[in-house]
Amino acid sequence: MKKKTSIVLILLMLSYYVCAKQIDINRFPSPQTVSLTLQPLVSAVPMTYWNDHPKTPKQWHDWVNTIAQFSLARLPELKQKFQVNSQPITLGGVSAFMISPKSITPENKNRILLHFHGGGYVLNPGEAGIDEAIMMAGYGNINVISIDYRMPPNAPFPAAIEDALSAYAALLEQYPASHIGVFGTSTGGGITLALMLKAKTLNLALPAAIVVGTPWTDLTNAGDTYVTNEGIDNVLVSYDGWLGDAAQLYAGKYDLKHPLISPLYGDVRNLPPTLLFTGTRDLFLSNTIRMHLKLKDVGVKADLIVFEGLSHAQYLMTVDAPETQRYFYES
Amino acid sequence: MKKKTSIVLILLMLSYYVCAKQIDINRFPSPQTVSLTLQPLVSAVPMTYWNDHPKTPKQWHDWVNTIAQFSLARLPELKQKFQVNSQPITLGGVSAFMISPKSITPENKNRILLHFHGGGYVLNPGEAGIDEAIMMAGYGNINVISIDYRMPPNAPFPAAIEDALSAYAALLEQYPASHIGVFGTSTGGGITLALMLKAKTLNLALPAAIVVGTPWTDLTNAGDTYVTNEGIDNVLVSYDGWLGDAAQLYAGKYDLKHPLISPLYGDVRNLPPTLLFTGTRDLFLSNTIRMHLKLKDVGVKADLIVFEGLSHAQYLMTVDAPETQRYFYES
Repeated sequence: MKKKTSIVLILLMLSYYVCAKQIDINRFPSPQTVSLTLQPLVSAVPMTYWNDHPKTPKQWHDWVNTIAQFSLARLPELKQKFQVNSQPITLGGVSAFMISPKSITPENKNRILLHFHGGGYVLNPGEAGIDEAIMMAGYGNINVISIDYRMPPNAPFPAAIEDALSAYAALLEQYPASHIGVFGTSTGGGITLALMLKAKTLNLALPAAIVVGTPWTDLTNAGDTYVTNEGIDNVLVSYDGWLGDAAQLYAGKYDLKHPLISPLYGDVRNLPPTLLFTGTRDLFLSNTIRMHLKLKDVGVKADLIVFEGLSHAQYLMTVDAPETQRYFYES
Repeated sequence: MKKKTSIVLILLMLSYYVCAKQIDINRFPSPQTVSLTLQPLVSAVPMTYWNDHPKTPKQWHDWVNTIAQFSLARLPELKQKFQVNSQPITLGGVSAFMISPKSITPENKNRILLHFHGGGYVLNPGEAGIDEAIMMAGYGNINVISIDYRMPPNAPFPAAIEDALSAYAALLEQYPASHIGVFGTSTGGGITLALMLKAKTLNLALPAAIVVGTPWTDLTNAGDTYVTNEGIDNVLVSYDGWLGDAAQLYAGKYDLKHPLISPLYGDVRNLPPTLLFTGTRDLFLSNTIRMHLKLKDVGVKADLIVFEGLSHAQYLMTVDAPETQRYFYES
């Protein structure tokens, strides 16, 4: 009897431990308050690779290349739908893609948008990073240059920011700053903000405006929704997946709080007007709203949009959901 | 042996059921990214009364009066700190309080703010509802009139909106609409929005601007964060506490989706410029951002601020946290 009781108690404790400790993933269905188009994505199983942990440079490369196939597979349809061309170019010595729509509105003829793709500083090399740029060119009827910045494991920080700066400086020789806009989602938003900080210290003219979709502003795990939206966000799921590893890999020997790595720790005074997007389930909700508050604290014109029910960057994952269209039209 | 296995299995299933079903309340500590002043509130145990369910009118009255004692106890210190007077008045036949600061800035001499208190349409009768108005008068150096609208169980919908309208119409006889602002938190934000919808249908001039802090825009349980922030918000905790009961009590025989009950279902075109506040842990995060998106959809100037780490209306619960000051200064 005593032995039986012990077994039961141990099993109960084990069971409690298991259910108290595990990340309970995507336990909520999609609310009806999300657009019909995006509801299946909101209620989808988490990204299969969220908890992968590549170790060696070769493992990182293989992993990145596998995931890139999914992004690349989407391109023909995107280019067709938005009637845009993608051309490899070099800008300031940096690899990039010129994304040109079939028709450009007259007021956009002398304007250019500079794009930085997302992917935790490791994903989406080459053309795998241009989906957002294609949609922006198509929705906005404007030319977009998407920068194929260098990434770890080969090229950790500050390579990406050096590339961003070289490209931006070269663009400034072709266009007045007031005719340039810079944008990106996730890591692309982080790079956009870091580029502003860097350009400011060099007294370069800043662009007319920037748009940062759910920007990775804090590469440490500080911020409320790294905790409260863990397991609720079905795209990133948790800082403790590949994401945290990528932060370390990118920062290398530098402090994660270096302002060009985590722009939330930078001096954001005099940044250009900034539009920020995020979603209620976004692991980066805090990354976004903390930057929004910080910008407003120092008098920068900053506008925030929070999408109902969306996890990280989900507005990029369809071509014509209302949320997707809003992202591009408001930008 | 077979019997022992069955017992163990049943206990395991029970244990799983218990830990899967319960609302796991306030399981996250306060992030360091919240102001020091508010961190204790963010990590506090939930409001003790969140899961109370008064049934009879007498039980509702007793419950409301008990909770009102806590609000009333805070008033002397608030009045002292902000050097304001509170005077019972009648406006358009409706009970109200005129809250006057010691000094009024010259540009505010001919301006007035109209305030509606929060409390789920049931809490904070009489002077128990004026804390927010006191702080606004003090921070803004402006006169504020706080409306003591009728509430259920005695006076369900549309009593509160009728009172709001009478008071606003009376105010329009004393001030040009461009010198009036209307604001409130939670239910007060909901009433503010409903008043705009009602005033619009009557072709009354609308005020210069409105501020709605975490407004109760949808009294049904629709909206993502009713689910995702359940048990994370330590103020409201869950729709399935007193809150859902209060929604039913207030609506009475009317549909919860009546646009003057849930303004999210109303026609919000041509509303005045609107400033909205919420927090990452707020059960009403979706109530707030859904209204923000809806206002922007129809071209209303609407600005959104999301506080890091805060549950419902927590910016009102201190007098001088940075978040509290921001709420009042930005308003």
